[in-house]
Amino acid sequence: MLILGLDPSLSCTGWGLIRAEGSRLSHIANGEVKTDAKAPIAERLHHLHDAIRAVIAAYAPDRAAAEEIFVNKNPQSTLKLAQARGAVLAACAAGGLTVNEHAARLVKKAVVGTGGADKAQVQAMLKVLLPGATIEGADAADALAVAIADAHLKGER
Amino acid sequence: MLILGLDPSLSCTGWGLIRAEGSRLSHIANGEVKTDAKAPIAERLHHLHDAIRAVIAAYAPDRAAAEEIFVNKNPQSTLKLAQARGAVLAACAAGGLTVNEHAARLVKKAVVGTGGADKAQVQAMLKVLLPGATIEGADAADALAVAIADAHLKGER
Repeated sequence: MLILGLDPSLSCTGWGLIRAEGSRLSHIANGEVKTDAKAPIAERLHHLHDAIRAVIAAYAPDRAAAEEIFVNKNPQSTLKLAQARGAVLAACAAGGLTVNEHAARLVKKAVVGTGGADKAQVQAMLKVLLPGATIEGADAADALAVAIADAHLKGER
Repeated sequence: MLILGLDPSLSCTGWGLIRAEGSRLSHIANGEVKTDAKAPIAERLHHLHDAIRAVIAAYAPDRAAAEEIFVNKNPQSTLKLAQARGAVLAACAAGGLTVNEHAARLVKKAVVGTGGADKAQVQAMLKVLLPGATIEGADAADALAVAIADAHLKGER
């Protein structure tokens, strides 16, 4: 079971692919799709959509997963984030994938064991759970974390 | 100059195409893309993306326009709307279109003459400005309104 974790955002969308065989997890690949902050938003969204379609075409994952979205304190960031997520989720369905959504707390709990874990704890656990993986950056790490959580929470379904 | 107006939303995205020649406007086509409320959100976003790409492929507009987005009172609606907008704007850029964004007030002002106009006034003015057009519904009407506003505000640029 190949699981594609996604951490969508307009400036940098992280993705991470893991293989789950029973309770055994292994790292396949991860990356970050960056967009040009000076480009029009429609172009940036298209770039995200296209890049995630390319990842799906290259690796043929079985399903995808992303954190649930919520409105945070900064409305403008929320709007950017949600639009990026729309382009990325459309790319998943275009590639035939279902997308499981998990609350951020459950992702942390699945990876670290506590819903209140901070980013450093999540990244430390990624090194333990996916030994040898070279992680592209913080957004790719978040994407791998949601893929791991999806494997725990949804199993081989 | 063919202008594609868009009124994105997850349940029903309106689109409207007008031709602008100097100050003369004419109606070309309009429609609404509806998605199944029972389908997963990724599939609904993909359906919107695909349908708007098909409209662009069929009519080859010169540019697109949409209302600016803002966070409204209902955070869940805002998140759905923004994700739909992300999928639709990505489709525009995939089709090579730039998307002009206009404040809702300026759209009403361009169509009716006052930024405080209500939906009924906008729809009445559409009948005057685009005589003979059969309008698919309220979302298609909003899409035609933003196309007209774009013609007024951006001219033949």
